[in-house]
Amino acid sequence: MSSKPGISFIGLGAMGFGMATNLVKQGYTVRGFDVWGPALYKFRGVGGQGAATPAEAVRNLPHCVCMVATMQQAQEVLFQGPSPAAKALPQGATLLLCSTVPAAYVQGLEEQLKKEGRGDIFLVDCPVSGGAGRAADGTLSIMASGSEAALAKARFLLQEMSDPAKLYMVKPEGSGQRGIGMGSNMKMCHQVLAANQILAASEAMGFAARMGLDLTKVGQEVIKSDAWSWMFENRLPRMLHPENKSIASAVTIILKDTSIITAQGRLLKFPTPMCSVAEQVYFASLSRGYGADDDSSLIRLYTEGAENVGKVQGEVTDEGAKVQLVIKLLKAIHLCSAAEAIRFGAHVGLDLDQLSELCNAAAGGSKLFETAGAVIIRNLRAGNGSRGWPADTVSLGDVTQDLQEAVDEAQRLKCPLFLGNQALNLLTMASRSVQSGSEAAEGSVVTNWCAIT
Amino acid sequence: MSSKPGISFIGLGAMGFGMATNLVKQGYTVRGFDVWGPALYKFRGVGGQGAATPAEAVRNLPHCVCMVATMQQAQEVLFQGPSPAAKALPQGATLLLCSTVPAAYVQGLEEQLKKEGRGDIFLVDCPVSGGAGRAADGTLSIMASGSEAALAKARFLLQEMSDPAKLYMVKPEGSGQRGIGMGSNMKMCHQVLAANQILAASEAMGFAARMGLDLTKVGQEVIKSDAWSWMFENRLPRMLHPENKSIASAVTIILKDTSIITAQGRLLKFPTPMCSVAEQVYFASLSRGYGADDDSSLIRLYTEGAENVGKVQGEVTDEGAKVQLVIKLLKAIHLCSAAEAIRFGAHVGLDLDQLSELCNAAAGGSKLFETAGAVIIRNLRAGNGSRGWPADTVSLGDVTQDLQEAVDEAQRLKCPLFLGNQALNLLTMASRSVQSGSEAAEGSVVTNWCAIT
Repeated sequence: MSSKPGISFIGLGAMGFGMATNLVKQGYTVRGFDVWGPALYKFRGVGGQGAATPAEAVRNLPHCVCMVATMQQAQEVLFQGPSPAAKALPQGATLLLCSTVPAAYVQGLEEQLKKEGRGDIFLVDCPVSGGAGRAADGTLSIMASGSEAALAKARFLLQEMSDPAKLYMVKPEGSGQRGIGMGSNMKMCHQVLAANQILAASEAMGFAARMGLDLTKVGQEVIKSDAWSWMFENRLPRMLHPENKSIASAVTIILKDTSIITAQGRLLKFPTPMCSVAEQVYFASLSRGYGADDDSSLIRLYTEGAENVGKVQGEVTDEGAKVQLVIKLLKAIHLCSAAEAIRFGAHVGLDLDQLSELCNAAAGGSKLFETAGAVIIRNLRAGNGSRGWPADTVSLGDVTQDLQEAVDEAQRLKCPLFLGNQALNLLTMASRSVQSGSEAAEGSVVTNWCAIT
Repeated sequence: MSSKPGISFIGLGAMGFGMATNLVKQGYTVRGFDVWGPALYKFRGVGGQGAATPAEAVRNLPHCVCMVATMQQAQEVLFQGPSPAAKALPQGATLLLCSTVPAAYVQGLEEQLKKEGRGDIFLVDCPVSGGAGRAADGTLSIMASGSEAALAKARFLLQEMSDPAKLYMVKPEGSGQRGIGMGSNMKMCHQVLAANQILAASEAMGFAARMGLDLTKVGQEVIKSDAWSWMFENRLPRMLHPENKSIASAVTIILKDTSIITAQGRLLKFPTPMCSVAEQVYFASLSRGYGADDDSSLIRLYTEGAENVGKVQGEVTDEGAKVQLVIKLLKAIHLCSAAEAIRFGAHVGLDLDQLSELCNAAAGGSKLFETAGAVIIRNLRAGNGSRGWPADTVSLGDVTQDLQEAVDEAQRLKCPLFLGNQALNLLTMASRSVQSGSEAAEGSVVTNWCAIT
């Protein structure tokens, strides 16, 4: 018998299985539940225990990790099924909700537990990031929030599952309110970058293909440039070799998170123009049967049917100039993506330094987020009236003009640029809001982004 | 021999052939040119004369009508081909450019004629609207601009080709500059409505289909409601009976005009967020091989592959409530469409009463344009600070909330709403720009639209 506390684990999918197995390896007694029988069988094979219902899994064990895929599933296993977990959790149990859910859901969950007489449960809102490999290694990124007491009780478990450098006890900006929902908000704001930048990679490479560029070459150029993003570099090999049909992250995964962002935006009356357009493209690709495919495969939305568009003639003939258009397109999208993520983070009261640190070290990272993002945060804190988009990075006018060149050429080639056109309209609105105000035209992107959002 | 003046006619396509044939019927000698030989053969069959080159068509005839499809074609027939028309036009000839082109193109054309020593030519910028039937009947809508002298010389021809109530000598707002380009700008602003509302019809009916509604019934409900638009009513029969494969207006046609809008927007640094997203959807459908199909067939972008989206569950079960969601979606899109068209019209200096009169009587018409459009124009003229979105129409808050219900449900059904989501983000930005300013939250849409554009 292990002297370590017993843990129940609900949801043994790609992520959950690895996380639960890692806990077994660390010497914990882990009792798992999953609706899919073979997962339980497999879990027993690696030393775990299996339970037939959520209630059976959690009974008498002081800690429960819930790693189901959606808030609907969380609601089902906790309250709605025939043997739900919430009632069966022992007195004073810790409940770690690791699923990516809207902050509003996990806040409502705290209320619901109280209403159902389970205010004794220590709820921790702690979505994770990092993929199945890091889940199994116990080196995930984790964004945790909850009461001080709940965090104190859960800390050892969070530490077992995470990389020490990537365990974030999510902080509010300034003297803001700490508590449940902050972890989910942090994950959400990171996913703003993911949602935009996953599609951006396909859009940029699709545009490159339509211009007749060698995708391997342009991919290398992008990675060396200010248009670099973690997502671009990560998706590139699968985009270059679609014949491998390698699936690292399915379209449905990023779609789910994108919908959380836009839904939370609607709830808070906060605009998410970049993510919204990405979401519609993801929905459209889902309808086409691409949901289970790797998200890098969405390049086909841009490359398909070039033979159907009729005779087109671009104006840019120089290969280097074409590569630059791809880079200009991505830089502008990444800038708008950074502004959207940071502005949303500020709106939900996140500590922007922590958001920045987390994103720069994670899959949402981009060169533009790192450089322009820092300026955006500085200006946001200084208040809307602040100038200060530094001349040594890039001016709003320049980035808009650069993007316009890419959009012009794509229009000549009749190539859709969903994100590129959205970014251009947003940057144009931002420029106009400055010109019509008292600011100089070269005002900061964030000043203007604030003016329009 | 006719005593009426001789006319050359370049471009004998669906529209041009009818227009030229009508002139023949009215007793004019018409010498036509088209790159497609059979058109010339057919034109001879209805009493016209044929020419082998543009130069041959225009030689010694005092009036020339150019009705080619694009500015590229206009440039080709006027200047670039082996026997271009511009050099061959007789001294002091009238040149009516009826093609839909960017205002910047026809303004540049005036300059180019001067530079090439043909400042003697009386150029008229006079795009048309109304379809092939009205072209053949000589009852088109025509939006004409040019010098007073050119308009005086061309008036008889414009009258032959148009419905007397629909011949617009395009006026500037207030004491603005009159001249070449105003006609094209008027056409462009009308086409903002067309571009948005053609796609909106497919989006709304596709959403209705995903909710399981009877499309015939919901179509009738929409037509009776404030969500009515000319485009919706016109496209509905073809949408309900796609098996007829009836082609009234191909996707490529509205795509061409949409690209003129967005390109002109980029040139003027003016945002066109609704048309831009419509354009990307049109490009995507072009790539899929739908370019030559009737634009009403784009409903399939929304209805296809419902079997691929997995298990979804809407929250709205009442049939009447579902129909209302469709109506709410369309109303909000039409409101944003009206704001985009009017705001762009104001930006390019059009007389807004004339724009309003023209759009209400044409294919861009909608119930929202008629009602809210009038308020938007009144408020625009009163200046940005004005309130006055009247309580008896609809408040910005209500229309946003209504649209949000539709977007929420579509998200649950995983149904893309490209325009609906764009409209919601714009309305949300508009609401926020008011709340952050000194205005009351129920400020007018146009006040806010101005703030963000």
